[in-house]
Amino acid sequence: MNNSKIPPSVEQQIVEALGQDCVFTDNETLEKHSRDQSKNLTLRPDMVVKPHDTEGLSRLFKICNTHGIPVTIQGGLSGLTGAALTATGGIALSMERFDKILDIDKANFQVTVEAGVITEHLYNVLKNNDLFYPPDPQGKGWSFIGGNINTNAGGPKCVKYGVTRDYVLNLEIVLPSGEVMWTSSNTLKFSTCYNLTHLIVGSEGTLAVVTKAVLKLLPLPTVNLLLLASFPEAEDACTAVAAIFQAGVVPSGLEYMEWEMVNYSARYLGVEPLSREHDAFLLIEVDGNNLDILHQDCEKIATVLQDFKVGDILFADNETQKNELWKLRRNAGNAMINLSKERLGEDTVVPRAALPAQLKGVREIAQKYGVKIASLGHLGDGNMHINILADEEPTEEWYTRAKQAKRAIFELTKSLNGMLSAEHGVGITQTPFLDVFFNNTHREILRGIKKVFDPKGILNPHKFV
Amino acid sequence: MNNSKIPPSVEQQIVEALGQDCVFTDNETLEKHSRDQSKNLTLRPDMVVKPHDTEGLSRLFKICNTHGIPVTIQGGLSGLTGAALTATGGIALSMERFDKILDIDKANFQVTVEAGVITEHLYNVLKNNDLFYPPDPQGKGWSFIGGNINTNAGGPKCVKYGVTRDYVLNLEIVLPSGEVMWTSSNTLKFSTCYNLTHLIVGSEGTLAVVTKAVLKLLPLPTVNLLLLASFPEAEDACTAVAAIFQAGVVPSGLEYMEWEMVNYSARYLGVEPLSREHDAFLLIEVDGNNLDILHQDCEKIATVLQDFKVGDILFADNETQKNELWKLRRNAGNAMINLSKERLGEDTVVPRAALPAQLKGVREIAQKYGVKIASLGHLGDGNMHINILADEEPTEEWYTRAKQAKRAIFELTKSLNGMLSAEHGVGITQTPFLDVFFNNTHREILRGIKKVFDPKGILNPHKFV
Repeated sequence: MNNSKIPPSVEQQIVEALGQDCVFTDNETLEKHSRDQSKNLTLRPDMVVKPHDTEGLSRLFKICNTHGIPVTIQGGLSGLTGAALTATGGIALSMERFDKILDIDKANFQVTVEAGVITEHLYNVLKNNDLFYPPDPQGKGWSFIGGNINTNAGGPKCVKYGVTRDYVLNLEIVLPSGEVMWTSSNTLKFSTCYNLTHLIVGSEGTLAVVTKAVLKLLPLPTVNLLLLASFPEAEDACTAVAAIFQAGVVPSGLEYMEWEMVNYSARYLGVEPLSREHDAFLLIEVDGNNLDILHQDCEKIATVLQDFKVGDILFADNETQKNELWKLRRNAGNAMINLSKERLGEDTVVPRAALPAQLKGVREIAQKYGVKIASLGHLGDGNMHINILADEEPTEEWYTRAKQAKRAIFELTKSLNGMLSAEHGVGITQTPFLDVFFNNTHREILRGIKKVFDPKGILNPHKFV
Repeated sequence: MNNSKIPPSVEQQIVEALGQDCVFTDNETLEKHSRDQSKNLTLRPDMVVKPHDTEGLSRLFKICNTHGIPVTIQGGLSGLTGAALTATGGIALSMERFDKILDIDKANFQVTVEAGVITEHLYNVLKNNDLFYPPDPQGKGWSFIGGNINTNAGGPKCVKYGVTRDYVLNLEIVLPSGEVMWTSSNTLKFSTCYNLTHLIVGSEGTLAVVTKAVLKLLPLPTVNLLLLASFPEAEDACTAVAAIFQAGVVPSGLEYMEWEMVNYSARYLGVEPLSREHDAFLLIEVDGNNLDILHQDCEKIATVLQDFKVGDILFADNETQKNELWKLRRNAGNAMINLSKERLGEDTVVPRAALPAQLKGVREIAQKYGVKIASLGHLGDGNMHINILADEEPTEEWYTRAKQAKRAIFELTKSLNGMLSAEHGVGITQTPFLDVFFNNTHREILRGIKKVFDPKGILNPHKFV
């Protein structure tokens, strides 16, 4: 505790305000709250606080705001950019006790949840009520809804159904001052002054703490079909993406994997990797309520794919086959993170038709800087997860080249009218590259907004603003 | 010109910077730019400026910001709240020369437009390209896309397809300082710091001027069906709305009209009004690409309606019949504005299942305050346009009662988890009622955000913040 930024008198106030059972300074807890899913990034908090409710959280903020103690909000720690890690020590505020689904409102297709509800748990509970919450980020098994809101999380289903933003109606937030407020209303439309809900979505915990959310739901689609297409040339896979939409089909999933990614996944799962002659794969799902129409959609897709140099097309219409195919995709990210020694990730997004140019440019960058790059992503949205990977222990010299390659990838993305992050956010790892996309005027506005909510700068400090 | 807020030396600078053909101070032009569609509200600018391009507009702002001249942005003047009127004189900035569709990008389902393009014109041009831009506000025949963005405009189609916000990808804006910037990127996903696009949408021209927009498009649905159901009791119509969604149907239009509104429309169109035994009507549209499925949807809807005291159900499957039914709905708003002597409008929104309670409460308020109230709206979204109407010349005493009734309606709406405005915005007419929905903390945040963009407060001053 000697190096802690939190004076003992303040610690005492926090314990008195929230109760000893909410305050943790033991080594094991501090360690656990030092890492997310970004590779090789460890930032240790001075204290972990786990409030039971909004009132306790508000009391915590009143103390921290008075004493200028940094507070960083943590959800399931499934993030990929360090956004929820304590950049400057201080308090890691764990939302894990905000774990209740408060109200399933079937009449209005809405659900009210606390911010610490796990995404997949919510999905399953709603599914049992014939309700559908579409955003399905990779880390859904342990990510919190509050974290999803803070990164505007996506996932495979978003190509058809939209991202987290599209499902957030209203938020209960606690301001750094400790004041509690709702951002808008539980309504499908809103045109009443600046929409604060949309400002909080994607703000990575830099403006306020989300404690409760009212989410919009849909009727659950009843059927889906899945197909996997392999391509000898990855560029053909990228070109096929826009063509599928041109044919009038909107898939409920349009996922891309390069052979390298499938290979990581296969090694991780201990199965035989697919042959190297396939340079890339598209995993395409359609869903709805009418199987005949889905079969027609699949035929349209297959017809489109014939216009490109497509290899095999595997068609899955039972759950076992579907799960086998999804397993390769679902495990690719974790496999790569676990099996590589270092990973610099770029969660880029470009207009769909620019994907072939992006792929070509990325491969040129890999060659120029002598780094291994493997990609996968939600190509239906134009969202490519590009990974610069070290399979051996990285050297300083590797880092220099990798960071140059990373900057080159962002410059390429910018030149294609794209953006730095589609769904992972900026956090710590991407902040050094913001200048590629935003000029000083833009960044001054971001800083100004931050100051409106958090004049003392205690909330998740040293993140993107 | 004697009472003008604009000193002759500043007028001279503006003329030199933009050209004489951009500057208007004649009586006719000033008169024309003094009114929108809000009844009985006239606010005369001191000058109307019509720049040709972003560069000219930027030069105008540099001058106005230096000299503290108020600038209010005007689109098609189809607004219903006075948001685009010059509350304190100064310059009315007309966007009418920003009228070009710059790029139809079929490969990416995107269009880039200038802010002064008329909504319906854009819709028709895109339709000819088999592309679909869904938001269809009432004033679409003369509203500008920039105005739609500034009020987050809606319309009948939004129940299925979402509002303007859901289609805005990226905006070119001019800040009050004259600086020009883009707010995000031409991409379907975005998670890179605060989303400034979503902050500008619905900001009613108080933060920056939108000069260009990149809009998301959909494939054009190929078929639709329409039915009109009458109800002896309006409450049954309101209750049926949530039930239709419960049955798994998502209509592409779910419009509500009380008999009074149909009567205004019929008088305006010179046709026989529908009999008074019908207290309210639902106009329900379904659309898609498969006629069989639409017929199934209509059957499901008819079955749902049988659970309520429904009167006649008219079914329209040819264009002539459909146009006849839509004409009654489309003309109701204009008819009411033209045929009444005064109108206080409330563009409320509540969760769908709260609609019957809202209707009941509104009718009690009408009785209590002795005012005529007639409503119509997009009930599929929970969006009721409630109108307090005077058919005779209103007295001071009427205004007192009407304003009390208006406040009571907003208090009722708030108690049902609803919001002040769904799609018309706040402007001048609704600002006095913001306190019902937002406390001081909330309003301080709004003021803070305004100040970040417009520190001198020259842009559309004295509006909601």
